[in-house]
Amino acid sequence: MRGRKAPEAIPKVARNAATKQSKKRLLRFARNDALENDNMKIIDTIPRMSTLVKMLKKEGKSIGFVPTMGYLHEGHLSLFKTAKKHTDLVVVSIFVNPIQFGPKEDIDKYPRDFKRDEELSRSAGVDVIFYPSEKDMYPENYKTFVFVEGLTETLCGISRPGHFKGVTTVVAKLFNIVRPDMAYFGQKDAQQAVIIKKMVKDLNMDIDVKVLGIVREKDGLAMSSRNVYLSPDERKDAAILYKSLTKAESLIKAGERETKKITKMMEETIQKTPTAKIDYISIVDTGNLKDVNVISGEILIALAVFIGKTRLIDNIIVKV
Amino acid sequence: MRGRKAPEAIPKVARNAATKQSKKRLLRFARNDALENDNMKIIDTIPRMSTLVKMLKKEGKSIGFVPTMGYLHEGHLSLFKTAKKHTDLVVVSIFVNPIQFGPKEDIDKYPRDFKRDEELSRSAGVDVIFYPSEKDMYPENYKTFVFVEGLTETLCGISRPGHFKGVTTVVAKLFNIVRPDMAYFGQKDAQQAVIIKKMVKDLNMDIDVKVLGIVREKDGLAMSSRNVYLSPDERKDAAILYKSLTKAESLIKAGERETKKITKMMEETIQKTPTAKIDYISIVDTGNLKDVNVISGEILIALAVFIGKTRLIDNIIVKV
Repeated sequence: MRGRKAPEAIPKVARNAATKQSKKRLLRFARNDALENDNMKIIDTIPRMSTLVKMLKKEGKSIGFVPTMGYLHEGHLSLFKTAKKHTDLVVVSIFVNPIQFGPKEDIDKYPRDFKRDEELSRSAGVDVIFYPSEKDMYPENYKTFVFVEGLTETLCGISRPGHFKGVTTVVAKLFNIVRPDMAYFGQKDAQQAVIIKKMVKDLNMDIDVKVLGIVREKDGLAMSSRNVYLSPDERKDAAILYKSLTKAESLIKAGERETKKITKMMEETIQKTPTAKIDYISIVDTGNLKDVNVISGEILIALAVFIGKTRLIDNIIVKV
Repeated sequence: MRGRKAPEAIPKVARNAATKQSKKRLLRFARNDALENDNMKIIDTIPRMSTLVKMLKKEGKSIGFVPTMGYLHEGHLSLFKTAKKHTDLVVVSIFVNPIQFGPKEDIDKYPRDFKRDEELSRSAGVDVIFYPSEKDMYPENYKTFVFVEGLTETLCGISRPGHFKGVTTVVAKLFNIVRPDMAYFGQKDAQQAVIIKKMVKDLNMDIDVKVLGIVREKDGLAMSSRNVYLSPDERKDAAILYKSLTKAESLIKAGERETKKITKMMEETIQKTPTAKIDYISIVDTGNLKDVNVISGEILIALAVFIGKTRLIDNIIVKV
């Protein structure tokens, strides 16, 4: 659920004016959606999604849910496939959430390719794509927000103020619409995963949140929709993020426990790459995301680095 | 869900350490809770409540829910009875929510009488009292909050900053635990009702929120747990709140449309009562709670007045 930049147009998809349809018609739609199980369904309004969910619940079907902003990659697909193993039915939402973008982050340039997403989802066994409009999700006069204190003011929260409030709000909404039994997030967005888990626990949402490992390119670069905006040279340089993480891990395995020394080494490693500009490098507790001075137990090494104009993030968990 | 003051002790009720119980045992508990339908059940942990709700949902039972802070009066009972007519099963929560009290509002003095509440609930046909502990609702390191912007900075939100954030957070939590089909609130807390409805709509909660009319004493005083703290003289004086509201209504019915003139008349009426001290008198739009200068359509006349040390609120809706 992170911001990316690319000059692509929003695909035009016919949206049913579901609010104008009678409940009976909605139910008929939902029946069709549910019965033709060989076909992946695309549901593009909240009322239709709610009706379908109600029917599935009545049938006792379990729902696995993966919220995405689309422009899918192997990382997403690994979530879909795992959800498919755990639950009767996999729902994937594709929604570029405006309220998690800062005023300086250009949501209009966020990459979109619905047709491609549709094909990838189908190939991964997705049952339903939920593809609501912005107007449906945030009608005029929208006013309610969910936020998690404390965990949101570190790491990416510093360079992206308000970002996580937007994430928790949209995820709470999507959870209420899709009412999943299990929800899947990627470890690449490590802070987001911790925050969502905290929200689910604190607000007593009856959802099992699974966080799955990072899927990487051959040179170790974490999969991200943003990677396509790297020039060939930048693409090569981008491998430095993971390289610095594995070097840090080796240092810890060799006995180093002082985080300052480890982050200094990571800084020096990254600074050798001309196109790289560090946003942050942090070693934090995996639970409360607070800075750790001396490494013990389980820690998260997380970083954000600009490669050219593209901001990339990555992380690893190390246990000592 | 408002603050009241009275020097009473928290009743001691044996609480099961449900988190330590096995899931099987929880399910057995829940079965007992559900099957003995002639008896009202008292459920005092979140896991037990969740297990019971899951079972009821499987059985296709509809749930009516009334969140309260206990110390019940006729106003509450009217909600219970209406819920009983609409749904298969009525759940009432009794929880004095610490996070909706300001630092100057003494939660420890909030009136409590669980035995009395239990009897009143039983007599009103309540099926389940949900009576969680503070530690169960807000465990150490609690961090997540729900808030509604815009509607919370007027009326009671001014003299009770943070109050409504506490209300929306606890109601969101209770909704997630009890998962009601219908939820019932009193019109006496008019601003609270508008805010809850907005939260439910904005966050796509699949709950039908009903707001029921104010239940009044013979002299018009709105029922409130706080009324018992009025001295005999203050109790007489307290009738001035409703009296000023009906006078305002008469003035409007007679053709007056300028809110300034109406509120001035109300001020003068109330100021004649020696024990009364006005907190606010407002005439606002019933939807967005914004001040109205010239009355048209449907408006809410709301006021908060201290009678001695006791802060009372009341309101009426007037259509022109």
